[in-house]
Amino acid sequence: MNDCLVELRVRYAETDQMRFAHHANYIAWFEMARIELLRQVGLSYAKMENDGYMLPVLEVHVNYFKPAFFDDKLCITARFVEFERARFKIEYNVYRDGMLISTGYSVHAFMNREGRAIRPPAFFMEKVKRNN
Amino acid sequence: MNDCLVELRVRYAETDQMRFAHHANYIAWFEMARIELLRQVGLSYAKMENDGYMLPVLEVHVNYFKPAFFDDKLCITARFVEFERARFKIEYNVYRDGMLISTGYSVHAFMNREGRAIRPPAFFMEKVKRNN
Amino acid sequence: MNDCLVELRVRYAETDQMRFAHHANYIAWFEMARIELLRQVGLSYAKMENDGYMLPVLEVHVNYFKPAFFDDKLCITARFVEFERARFKIEYNVYRDGMLISTGYSVHAFMNREGRAIRPPAFFMEKVKRNN
Amino acid sequence: MNDCLVELRVRYAETDQMRFAHHANYIAWFEMARIELLRQVGLSYAKMENDGYMLPVLEVHVNYFKPAFFDDKLCITARFVEFERARFKIEYNVYRDGMLISTGYSVHAFMNREGRAIRPPAFFMEKVKRNN
Repeated sequence: MNDCLVELRVRYAETDQMRFAHHANYIAWFEMARIELLRQVGLSYAKMENDGYMLPVLEVHVNYFKPAFFDDKLCITARFVEFERARFKIEYNVYRDGMLISTGYSVHAFMNREGRAIRPPAFFMEKVKRNN
Repeated sequence: MNDCLVELRVRYAETDQMRFAHHANYIAWFEMARIELLRQVGLSYAKMENDGYMLPVLEVHVNYFKPAFFDDKLCITARFVEFERARFKIEYNVYRDGMLISTGYSVHAFMNREGRAIRPPAFFMEKVKRNN
Repeated sequence: MNDCLVELRVRYAETDQMRFAHHANYIAWFEMARIELLRQVGLSYAKMENDGYMLPVLEVHVNYFKPAFFDDKLCITARFVEFERARFKIEYNVYRDGMLISTGYSVHAFMNREGRAIRPPAFFMEKVKRNN
Repeated sequence: MNDCLVELRVRYAETDQMRFAHHANYIAWFEMARIELLRQVGLSYAKMENDGYMLPVLEVHVNYFKPAFFDDKLCITARFVEFERARFKIEYNVYRDGMLISTGYSVHAFMNREGRAIRPPAFFMEKVKRNN
């Protein structure tokens, strides 16, 4: 089990009538872990967007092994797994009490303020390579 | 019962473990009805924002009389109730099978692209007054 | 382009600061189409859950080709693509003005009220096979 | 400024195209603070629901003074303000860097598993009175 990038409690608003944390919430949890992964290598995604560098999502995948329930404390990990020209992939794990309950990944591109695809900016690749 | 500005089915993702439509969703439903109320008087809120006129929310209130459940068909109404210099108020009703299950209101100001409060633009007041 | 099972307008609450419909919402839209797909073959998922038959999600995948924006009218399609013992797969398409902007799928199991995996109930398989 | 019951970072998924944290999220943040307020007086809301005691929301109100933005660290406080036979009221404050950006309240009733209104259970009133 890697270090948790995000530790959160399942919100009541995140439950559904099956009494599970609704499966769409994992996407938002992955995103929180992604933001923290960037922060860990020295990148503020808030600043990146202000500077005109966006990371839109091209693809997302989630595997659900065990449900998460209201008030559960979850740990989310994230790590870069692939860089391929203008896209990159991040993998995520969700743990409850040390047990892996979900895995997933997201694929991202780089986009400028006008919504056009761009090459990965040098400052991004440097930070990621140096710290990964 | 007024005319429905929005008719929607409660989404599974909107339920919570009490088996109710979670109470935060009403805020999004009111917003949908507000957008349709504007459209009805000839205003596209999407265009308004593109033109630099935003309607931030200053206040919101919801009364919950009866719960809404998964797959329920709801009808949302909205009407302008107050214009006071630079703010206005909209009231909402939520009906299920003709029964009023929730009421509420929101208060809005006008804001420009820079996030500064502005006076209500003339085109807005004309449309609203002519059609209300 | 198949028949739309769900037609919806992107809610303001569904946008993010990239001005896109946030990518997590597609999961809820797929779910809405899944509920309608079931209704189309004569199954009420609300009734199924009341009768103790749940369809938890084991896996979900989304490909994002083009963003969706506030107030866009979207069409969501869904179809059964695989039945394999105790699980099944549904594929989804999202269209805007006839253009395919997203695809995805979800994999489901059958679960009883106690949260235990069960074989697909006969009434389910009959309805699906007869109408698919 | 009271003690924070919840400290959170505004999620990217919580932003809207005005670049604000969408106003519906405050309802979920209030709820998180309410759960922690209960925990602070020795009540687990998760356990309460398992034991058949629900706290449905009758009314909710939010005042928005200043927007919250992506990645902002927010502090949410909550306190009981009224007990009136079978209902109670909780008030909330939202702070960013010590500045009050939002206030609100919610009104709740007590409900049993069958969805019927009940008198406040003795264990609840004792805990709240002793610790408030």
